[in-house]
Amino acid sequence: MSSQANHPALLIPGPIEFDDAVLQSMSHYSESHVGAPFVATFGETLSMLRKLFQTTDPTSQPFVISGSGTLGWDLVAANLAEPGDDVLVLHTGYFADSFSDCFETYGAKVTQLKAPIGSRPQLPEIEKALKEKKYKLLTVTHVDTSTGVLSELKALSELVHRVSPDTLLIVDGVCSVGCEDIEFDKWQLDGVITASQKAIGCPAGLSISMYSGRAIKSFQSRKTPPGSYFASFKNWLPIMQNYEAKKPSYFATPSPQLIHALHTSLTQILSKPLSERFAAHRETSQKIKKAVADLGLKQLASDPADQANGMTAIYLPENVKIPDLLPNLLKKGVIFAGGLHKEIATKYIRVGHMGVSVTDPKRDDVDRAIKALEAGLSEAGYQKA
Amino acid sequence: MSSQANHPALLIPGPIEFDDAVLQSMSHYSESHVGAPFVATFGETLSMLRKLFQTTDPTSQPFVISGSGTLGWDLVAANLAEPGDDVLVLHTGYFADSFSDCFETYGAKVTQLKAPIGSRPQLPEIEKALKEKKYKLLTVTHVDTSTGVLSELKALSELVHRVSPDTLLIVDGVCSVGCEDIEFDKWQLDGVITASQKAIGCPAGLSISMYSGRAIKSFQSRKTPPGSYFASFKNWLPIMQNYEAKKPSYFATPSPQLIHALHTSLTQILSKPLSERFAAHRETSQKIKKAVADLGLKQLASDPADQANGMTAIYLPENVKIPDLLPNLLKKGVIFAGGLHKEIATKYIRVGHMGVSVTDPKRDDVDRAIKALEAGLSEAGYQKA
Repeated sequence: MSSQANHPALLIPGPIEFDDAVLQSMSHYSESHVGAPFVATFGETLSMLRKLFQTTDPTSQPFVISGSGTLGWDLVAANLAEPGDDVLVLHTGYFADSFSDCFETYGAKVTQLKAPIGSRPQLPEIEKALKEKKYKLLTVTHVDTSTGVLSELKALSELVHRVSPDTLLIVDGVCSVGCEDIEFDKWQLDGVITASQKAIGCPAGLSISMYSGRAIKSFQSRKTPPGSYFASFKNWLPIMQNYEAKKPSYFATPSPQLIHALHTSLTQILSKPLSERFAAHRETSQKIKKAVADLGLKQLASDPADQANGMTAIYLPENVKIPDLLPNLLKKGVIFAGGLHKEIATKYIRVGHMGVSVTDPKRDDVDRAIKALEAGLSEAGYQKA
Repeated sequence: MSSQANHPALLIPGPIEFDDAVLQSMSHYSESHVGAPFVATFGETLSMLRKLFQTTDPTSQPFVISGSGTLGWDLVAANLAEPGDDVLVLHTGYFADSFSDCFETYGAKVTQLKAPIGSRPQLPEIEKALKEKKYKLLTVTHVDTSTGVLSELKALSELVHRVSPDTLLIVDGVCSVGCEDIEFDKWQLDGVITASQKAIGCPAGLSISMYSGRAIKSFQSRKTPPGSYFASFKNWLPIMQNYEAKKPSYFATPSPQLIHALHTSLTQILSKPLSERFAAHRETSQKIKKAVADLGLKQLASDPADQANGMTAIYLPENVKIPDLLPNLLKKGVIFAGGLHKEIATKYIRVGHMGVSVTDPKRDDVDRAIKALEAGLSEAGYQKA
């Protein structure tokens, strides 16, 4: 069951395939969470995250906390919104509904701007909404894992800063950080939350996020205490600052093994220009999307400008059923995911193409995936019309 | 940097030393969190936890969630207390203060029953407090990691059930589950929260807990929604029940690597009678406590009945300073911890003796620790009076 063993290629939109060196870092011998060697590893990891998010502004603040990506929503909702605050949630699928639930748990008032499935809210309607009400936060799912829809951050940020400059712009980047270009400083983002197990290429178990100095200031001027204990910036901010300054500090015990794996993964990612990494993801995505089109299939995201580069959501042909197709693909050595958007979950499949499956020239995961999909559909009786 | 490399023995009260097989499980190849192989592993892990907690009552409910031990406090405070509920917190050190902060974050009203450092609240004063007010919950730190004080659960439970039978009895077992006897059913406990990295012997990153059917019912009859999103029973309960029934289910992505490690560790623990495991921890603890006494040193917990079996907190001789002693012990190949109780942090050290350092006959961690302590004190100029 070791990292080297033969196993089917995991090509779902997260968790992804992990590099063997990353997996081996997981079995690092036990260290004290406040001892100098681990404190240095954690501190370097936080500094490397600044590079991944392309931020050099010293007021930006990275957080790495044991938890899943979902915890990032609590970090935002319990610290950056206060009870009664208005929040505008751009809706491109399943995850906007959950993020909204999270905001409501902590007392914020949510307005959703919903796009039809496979699309995203357009700038003019966002502008209209921002002019109607004063929003404390606007949230956008950069890549919605349920639909494969990519949102455009640069133009959105320009709009928000022009129309409602006090509104904090928060990005759910769980399925985008590490495979889509994110220029935290240049695009004036206020928060990007993500998780370890997707394009960052480290096993699940870490909530990873970056906040602007403006967001941290907004937190510090709250009138009410944070709504969560485990997700409280008040508890974590000094810890993150101390670790990055290589000073031991304690609020809750971090996971040295996961931090080592993240350190290894970030070191690998940052060993080449980020632009090359993003270009590789775009190229591979184009290859897969071309294969899908050649098969006569449609994506949920119909407009090429709305299509994510790290995953593809594909409508199945009428007569092909998920419970038949996915097990057949598994036999061919690749694991795809079923649908997640509740309205159409049985009608589409999702394939992830992130991390080493894209960047490691020794892997043939993507070619195998395309061949398996072609053969699987053919064996299910599908022929291109 | 692999698990097999030579490294100093980590003898702090958590994280502890991990077995190589557990560490190797951390580097399991990537699996889908909703695929049959991982769902089976997670389901078995939950079932094994029932055995570790000695519960056969089918209404008992285990939870395993990505996070640190601290998350367990949020699980209790956000789900089992409602805003305005009175909570009685038995105070034996640092962790009762933090648990109280957590309750207050979610709106509960906390009354602390404080014992002098090194002691624990006594049954008569607890009885008096329970008669003064109707408490929704009573919490006790089974072993306080900051003081090494062990609380007595059986008699406490008898008292609570006699005097205030509606009060839920919640145990913070972060530093006790896996090394102290806990009979969840027999002692009629309502909640025990713990973490992976102490006596359970699995790397940090998992919040592990068990609740009684009565606690779950109490949750289900809440008048207000849970105060947290990430720590909400509403979100997690169906997920845990589905995984244990070997059905795929999704709220937030679990960490397959950590769950594999926990599966390995629980399999090892349950391969022998639990009574043997607890006896081994008691014997090793006695050996260390005798060595401490032979050195003429005192423990924080002065009454032998209040002394934990998985750790020892030791007052330093007047002229021996932590910043001199601990680095010298590290040179001798053992890592101890400094003090944590804020009032006396510089005056004492803590040594953990849990898990494989106690149970694996191939290890000499404990003997090395005793010899290192003797030599370290002698080199610091200390002589027994």
